[in-house]
Amino acid sequence: MNTYRVDFEPLGIRADCSEGSRLLDVARQAGVGLTSICGGNSTCGRCMVRVISGRVSPISQTERDLMDDESVEEGMRLACLTRVLDHVKIEVPPCSRLVDQRLQLDGIDVDVPFDPVVKDVVVGLATPHMGDLRSDQRRLFEQLSQVLDQEINAIDLFALRQAATVLRNNQWHARVSLHGQEVIDIHAPDQRPLGLAVDLGTTKIAVYLVDLDTGQTLAVEGIPNPQIAYGEDVMSRIAYAMQGEVNRLRQVVIEGLNQVIASMCSRPEEIVDVSLVGNTAMHHLFLGLPVRQLGLAPYLPTAHTELDVKARDLGLSIAPGAYVHLLPNIAGFVGADHVAMILATSIYRTQKTVIGLDIGTNTEVVLAHDGVLTSCSTASGPAFEGAHIRYGMRAASGAIEKVQLSHDKVEVKTIDDQPAIGLCGSGILDAISELNGAGLLSSRGKLLDGLGVRQNHSDREYLLVPAECTGCNQDITISERDIAEILLAKAAIRTGMDVLLADRGISAEDVDEIIIAGAFGTHISVVSGIKIGLFPPLPVDHFRQVGNAAGIGARLALVSGPQRQLAVEVAGRVHYLELLAQEKFPNQFAHNIYLPQP
Amino acid sequence: MNTYRVDFEPLGIRADCSEGSRLLDVARQAGVGLTSICGGNSTCGRCMVRVISGRVSPISQTERDLMDDESVEEGMRLACLTRVLDHVKIEVPPCSRLVDQRLQLDGIDVDVPFDPVVKDVVVGLATPHMGDLRSDQRRLFEQLSQVLDQEINAIDLFALRQAATVLRNNQWHARVSLHGQEVIDIHAPDQRPLGLAVDLGTTKIAVYLVDLDTGQTLAVEGIPNPQIAYGEDVMSRIAYAMQGEVNRLRQVVIEGLNQVIASMCSRPEEIVDVSLVGNTAMHHLFLGLPVRQLGLAPYLPTAHTELDVKARDLGLSIAPGAYVHLLPNIAGFVGADHVAMILATSIYRTQKTVIGLDIGTNTEVVLAHDGVLTSCSTASGPAFEGAHIRYGMRAASGAIEKVQLSHDKVEVKTIDDQPAIGLCGSGILDAISELNGAGLLSSRGKLLDGLGVRQNHSDREYLLVPAECTGCNQDITISERDIAEILLAKAAIRTGMDVLLADRGISAEDVDEIIIAGAFGTHISVVSGIKIGLFPPLPVDHFRQVGNAAGIGARLALVSGPQRQLAVEVAGRVHYLELLAQEKFPNQFAHNIYLPQP
Repeated sequence: MNTYRVDFEPLGIRADCSEGSRLLDVARQAGVGLTSICGGNSTCGRCMVRVISGRVSPISQTERDLMDDESVEEGMRLACLTRVLDHVKIEVPPCSRLVDQRLQLDGIDVDVPFDPVVKDVVVGLATPHMGDLRSDQRRLFEQLSQVLDQEINAIDLFALRQAATVLRNNQWHARVSLHGQEVIDIHAPDQRPLGLAVDLGTTKIAVYLVDLDTGQTLAVEGIPNPQIAYGEDVMSRIAYAMQGEVNRLRQVVIEGLNQVIASMCSRPEEIVDVSLVGNTAMHHLFLGLPVRQLGLAPYLPTAHTELDVKARDLGLSIAPGAYVHLLPNIAGFVGADHVAMILATSIYRTQKTVIGLDIGTNTEVVLAHDGVLTSCSTASGPAFEGAHIRYGMRAASGAIEKVQLSHDKVEVKTIDDQPAIGLCGSGILDAISELNGAGLLSSRGKLLDGLGVRQNHSDREYLLVPAECTGCNQDITISERDIAEILLAKAAIRTGMDVLLADRGISAEDVDEIIIAGAFGTHISVVSGIKIGLFPPLPVDHFRQVGNAAGIGARLALVSGPQRQLAVEVAGRVHYLELLAQEKFPNQFAHNIYLPQP
Repeated sequence: MNTYRVDFEPLGIRADCSEGSRLLDVARQAGVGLTSICGGNSTCGRCMVRVISGRVSPISQTERDLMDDESVEEGMRLACLTRVLDHVKIEVPPCSRLVDQRLQLDGIDVDVPFDPVVKDVVVGLATPHMGDLRSDQRRLFEQLSQVLDQEINAIDLFALRQAATVLRNNQWHARVSLHGQEVIDIHAPDQRPLGLAVDLGTTKIAVYLVDLDTGQTLAVEGIPNPQIAYGEDVMSRIAYAMQGEVNRLRQVVIEGLNQVIASMCSRPEEIVDVSLVGNTAMHHLFLGLPVRQLGLAPYLPTAHTELDVKARDLGLSIAPGAYVHLLPNIAGFVGADHVAMILATSIYRTQKTVIGLDIGTNTEVVLAHDGVLTSCSTASGPAFEGAHIRYGMRAASGAIEKVQLSHDKVEVKTIDDQPAIGLCGSGILDAISELNGAGLLSSRGKLLDGLGVRQNHSDREYLLVPAECTGCNQDITISERDIAEILLAKAAIRTGMDVLLADRGISAEDVDEIIIAGAFGTHISVVSGIKIGLFPPLPVDHFRQVGNAAGIGARLALVSGPQRQLAVEVAGRVHYLELLAQEKFPNQFAHNIYLPQP
């Protein structure tokens, strides 16, 4: 059989293979990071490549079915269905390259050694005979103990149910997934171990599919939290749950996750580990824990520690023996997502004075000073997410994300440059900042007389985009009521920071860095935030906007046992400050509602 | 409030109590062992007592409903519904006294200190306030760790779901069940911890309900194994399971157990521990493990070790966080019931030469010699249980259990002295022994000509009871085919013993004791057994018939953690001998089919 050379461009990776080899296998062996969600089973259509030169097997109907017409016309092929028949030169287009091989945060490089809690090992066992009558279980335990050089003596019931069949169908070979000393899954040697990291937000759920053999992120998907139908914010969901509906809230999240999982991978039973972060209420509802006590003073979580819960006990359709690891909570309103953010941003080990903010319906704030971590939570409400704002909307196509007032002219920038249909959080922030700068707002947020300001029934409003220039055929305005909502939100967040600083006896000028995490925080103008008093007046280079740090933290806990342990230490180190118990809180809050003079 | 004196007769126990006290509570505090299956909830009607003198509260309608008319007429009262209004003298009738306070085997006294694996503790926690914001879980862990002087840091998800509500509904007091360092259940302080010991036989399931506060057995029930509908013996059930029906066999057993549990106690969620023994096939089917490999040479179990499996994973309707403890198996046909028998009979620690037999469809044999334990299993078939015998039946009312031939006259004894309707195992054994003694059988089991012997189509038979003397209006006979079945069974059992003895280089004369366990073994005539060659010809006082030793073993494992550990050691010490791999087996078996000369 002939040996051929395969060049992968533009990567410059070269490999030899025998005639008839699958291109996907050649790429894998050569270390080419080629996307393949289905694991080479020709169901996902993701491993597209283009043959630049040389002969390969002809295109199959399956490939035509899995790719769109355009890709087929461009000469794309699926590497899993293409066999090498000559020296070939292959182009790997950007969409087929594995991305995110290292966990990256904007401006932060989180490089953690790959050391997952769930480990996979392929074993070959001695075939039984009349002189070797060991049970399947003993045969497996003894071989694993020898290979791993530690005693393996526990096996999940559901893995045990698989063992006899898997071993006999694969000539006494199997791929075994271990969680500590417990065998949690046993499968054919050619199956892959997959992991899932979940950031369970009040509004959005982000799901990361990770290859637990390599640590690579294979796919990312986001869905709205289906609990939104039962209440937009945490408090309204707690109120709904208190009507005896904890289980319904639990079920809709589980069903949503099962759907995402099914859409992300063709064999969900290959998922053998999950790490999950969320705020304390989302954490409790996900587990089916009561939340009544979270909604009443003194707002106690019923559970706080890290937990490993069998996926089947939660109803997740993955390997039934797999555990879901939930990172620890700190308090009723400071959850595992905050711990994950501290982990991902490395705030826990800074020697500087740093504030970390995760702005959402609840905003969690952490202050690191002299190596001590203090956190609080503040009820900032959903205004920054576009809710409770007349023309507010989520950050989607057509949302106004930037606003500028110059010489009585309003300029807006929309997402995807589509005709405006509403205002998202960053646009609202800009609008108020600009109105304030133009002298159109009183310090209490009342609209002063001026061009664009008009009465609308009992409310006053400012015209941002006239109907004829919008995509919704109505004037888009910002009203005094909208402004009042935003001022409450900004006061809550700023007061959180102020109280933490006062507690440590320092002031805003002592802060070296403010890290802003979360989707909203990524898109806002820091300058606008300073102008309306959301942030303290520090130089702009003191601010860093880092994106979904909680999701990164969840992935860190998935690919690294030591990071999981670190999360426990971090949660234990954080001093929780209950804002409502602080004497200064009401006055400080009242003070922060005012707009600074421009 | 007045204080009154209560005398419990004929126990001679005296107690003082305040006016209006419940008699049941007074009895409990005074240490009177009074039966109460419902735990004092006035649903079981078992705590009957008679008031000899003194004034108590008048009888209620509930009491009349729960007792039969006769008891009411005799002046019986339920202690749970009777309040003390004077100095009183109370009679506790035998039927209301707790029995079986020590685990007893016929002739063996198994006295094991009460030290269960699942421990219960009542805790009172500090009430939370703004200055003590610990989560419910931390509050509980810290208090338990302090009370028990060991770190408690794990809690079952389902217990966690209960915790917030139970603690708040009971003024921060709760009764907590612990399995090692894991909190498996949390409930109101007045609930009792119950345990269940199960002997899962191929034919019959025996269930023991035990109070885990005291170790007392509260109730015992036996049901036929519902799997019988899918095959009478182990091999036919394995064959059925191999058609993809493992799960159905699993389900019918679980449903059967759930029904028994519901009939034995009014609050099954109070059951926080289960220990279970059975042969390896029953063990596998109970867990939903495949049994194909048990039905094919070399007859391997897939699991052998002791296992702790969450009750909810099996579908058992008890406390969802409870574990079911399965004692270890030894081999494909030597299961945990054999281990339990060795445990209950103390064979594991004898210095004598002892044979232990548990006769059933499969008969397990153990030989203890010089402190070494060797076991084997032999397929004795269901003939001794009345199956495959024309007029065979289980040991029930009207079954002939004893047969005597004297001067050509047949005398039979039936169970409950009812008109005969069939033959149970001990009757069949007697019949063959007597026919052999009377010279009516050849050494190959053929019926010789003589009084009572007649041809019946292609078979020959002996008339035991003529139709007019039976309860079934037909002649009850024993045929050559019946005899052949029994000779196969006795050859199998005897060969098991012979092979074990030969393996250790000793002979039957060296045996100090033969312990016969199991229901069949309890009722047979040892003399008849010796006469037909089932047992070696040892003096009758060398035999001991001990009843359901496996059930006792299961209870030992429920009330004692050290006994559970001992079971693991015993299972590990037993040398398993595969009969089919023994060179001498076929010849020995052929030899043992013959009847000894009388």
